[in-house]
Amino acid sequence: MGDARRFLSIDDEFQMVHGRLRQPTIAYETLGELNESRDNAVLILTGLSASAHVASNVEDPTPGWWEDVVGPGKPIDTHRYFVVCVCSLGSFFGSTCPASTDPSTGSAYRLTFPMLTLEDIAHGAKCVIDHLEIKRLHSVVGASMGGMSVLAFALMYPDAVNAMLNISAGANSQPFSIALRSLQRELVCNDPKWLNGEYPFDQQPQEGMRLARKLGMISYRSSQEWRDRFGRERITDADANVHTNPFGMDFEIEAYLSARARSFMDAFDANCYLYLSRAIDLFDAADHGGSVQLAINRLGIERATILGVQSDFLFLPDQQRELKNAMSSAGIRVEFEILDSIQGHDSFLVDMNRFRPAIAAHFNRS
Amino acid sequence: MGDARRFLSIDDEFQMVHGRLRQPTIAYETLGELNESRDNAVLILTGLSASAHVASNVEDPTPGWWEDVVGPGKPIDTHRYFVVCVCSLGSFFGSTCPASTDPSTGSAYRLTFPMLTLEDIAHGAKCVIDHLEIKRLHSVVGASMGGMSVLAFALMYPDAVNAMLNISAGANSQPFSIALRSLQRELVCNDPKWLNGEYPFDQQPQEGMRLARKLGMISYRSSQEWRDRFGRERITDADANVHTNPFGMDFEIEAYLSARARSFMDAFDANCYLYLSRAIDLFDAADHGGSVQLAINRLGIERATILGVQSDFLFLPDQQRELKNAMSSAGIRVEFEILDSIQGHDSFLVDMNRFRPAIAAHFNRS
Repeated sequence: MGDARRFLSIDDEFQMVHGRLRQPTIAYETLGELNESRDNAVLILTGLSASAHVASNVEDPTPGWWEDVVGPGKPIDTHRYFVVCVCSLGSFFGSTCPASTDPSTGSAYRLTFPMLTLEDIAHGAKCVIDHLEIKRLHSVVGASMGGMSVLAFALMYPDAVNAMLNISAGANSQPFSIALRSLQRELVCNDPKWLNGEYPFDQQPQEGMRLARKLGMISYRSSQEWRDRFGRERITDADANVHTNPFGMDFEIEAYLSARARSFMDAFDANCYLYLSRAIDLFDAADHGGSVQLAINRLGIERATILGVQSDFLFLPDQQRELKNAMSSAGIRVEFEILDSIQGHDSFLVDMNRFRPAIAAHFNRS
Repeated sequence: MGDARRFLSIDDEFQMVHGRLRQPTIAYETLGELNESRDNAVLILTGLSASAHVASNVEDPTPGWWEDVVGPGKPIDTHRYFVVCVCSLGSFFGSTCPASTDPSTGSAYRLTFPMLTLEDIAHGAKCVIDHLEIKRLHSVVGASMGGMSVLAFALMYPDAVNAMLNISAGANSQPFSIALRSLQRELVCNDPKWLNGEYPFDQQPQEGMRLARKLGMISYRSSQEWRDRFGRERITDADANVHTNPFGMDFEIEAYLSARARSFMDAFDANCYLYLSRAIDLFDAADHGGSVQLAINRLGIERATILGVQSDFLFLPDQQRELKNAMSSAGIRVEFEILDSIQGHDSFLVDMNRFRPAIAAHFNRS
């Protein structure tokens, strides 16, 4: 299993919204070829738990997290576009993060890492785009946290973006999703093994991370999907389980969540998770202009595609509608669609029959 | 502050679905007067965390949990009806529960309490109704867990119920709400102070209960309500807080949840909570007939009013619709309404402008 990542080492001090980093690294992967006029580049920023490995390629043939969307002949067609997927600053998959060594101390940053914002993530991505000598991106593309990050990018660098594909995100975080993320962070911080962020890296607060992930799984999907998939099916060995622990697992949905939460447990650093989770809460496009509308008025994009999902209760369709309306008012050409997917917030990762054509349409309009 | 509770001591052995209890007690309160023909009685069964104190009365003038609904001249008018509100078997507010002493051992039941079902709660209520020498109830009324409990009651005692008012419940629990409750229980059981149920009663697993309550609060309300109420308001002393803990509270919604969760912490016994929570998961009307429809066909009620709330994502409007359709198919006269309340599952406790007339209509139709 190869590694397709490139690592951009930033020589200068990197200014963040709430602090600075010395010589950070930004990891990224690219697919396809930059054309001579350097105007076919597509920047993808990711959700909270995704890496820069968006799709398989020669160097790393393992499937990427958006394998069905990015590649030759796919909706984001790497025969036509030069795709750059950046690992968010603060994320655990190769960019400088709270688990990285602070060159000024020789120890890991941990909680001395400055408060992270999505603007910092956009700034890190801009360093990569500059390094690749791309003046103006064909499109920026992001879903969930990635959708907010590309919005931050387009607000900060209005000359650098031609079009935006924004999926299941919004102009800011709303209190319901803040409440869920706040509780998730509390579950991690309440784990005695978190040790106020000073845990040994091979002894993560796995129990807290597992509980946080379970809550995430619940909020990423929808009632309807689980009703269709699991109904009231019982675990086959439920009897034995119930006899040993009266509050143990009994239903299929409980076993499913348990298995999925465990699979995430070891894959992510707890402090990185906490920083990224908080960064989502903090984002508000209004910070870029006094109100959401005033901020959107400053965008330099010509057109946008805004997609959402009817069953998403983490980033509500109302939030995508608000973004669409603000862009329309700002004179941007906007295509807008709320898809009928039943898989909730996660639909962009799984309901490919609906998302593939909707994403392809954005690129076919260009 | 007086105590209006009556306590029915059951002399015989009390047969439960999954075990038996020796001489349990069922607590209840009554309001109004039973008429001579004994046909004006209304039985109210409660949600998970409510007591039998449904409304203020002479003996206990403190406001009850449904103060706006039950009382003289109110939608459930105690000038006209004899109201009996029963404390669920297994609940902490006076009926026999896992925190009660097992007469055969002299110690608290704790986890030796038999697996609890809503059928057992209905059975306990039936003992009270028999004790009061009521042959047939004018109506059974319940919301949330109480709605399922009165459905269990009507299925088990088809001759004892004339009409049903069923609010924000369903014919069974669906996997999304099972998942939420399963995680809540896990939060309690993961608290080191739970001690596998053997905690001293004055040293409850408060941290686990607090986290479970926070998750409950999130699932009982709705995105829209919190957006309207809290938006992205910051805590006034947020700066100080953020500087001491980078993942501390920053938004008003976080402070609200924190305060509300603490207020619940000391009011309920952890093992009782676990038993009641599981009982909700386990309920399925289909157990009374092979399918929901076959069970509903056996009901002896003449009419029903089924209410739900558009913004409820714990007991979805689809579940109330399913119940309505099954009753209609069974030849029961059904009034059905999904209210536009934005307060989610909790609306029946707070959106009185919508619920008062909808509840009054049930009684005015009689």
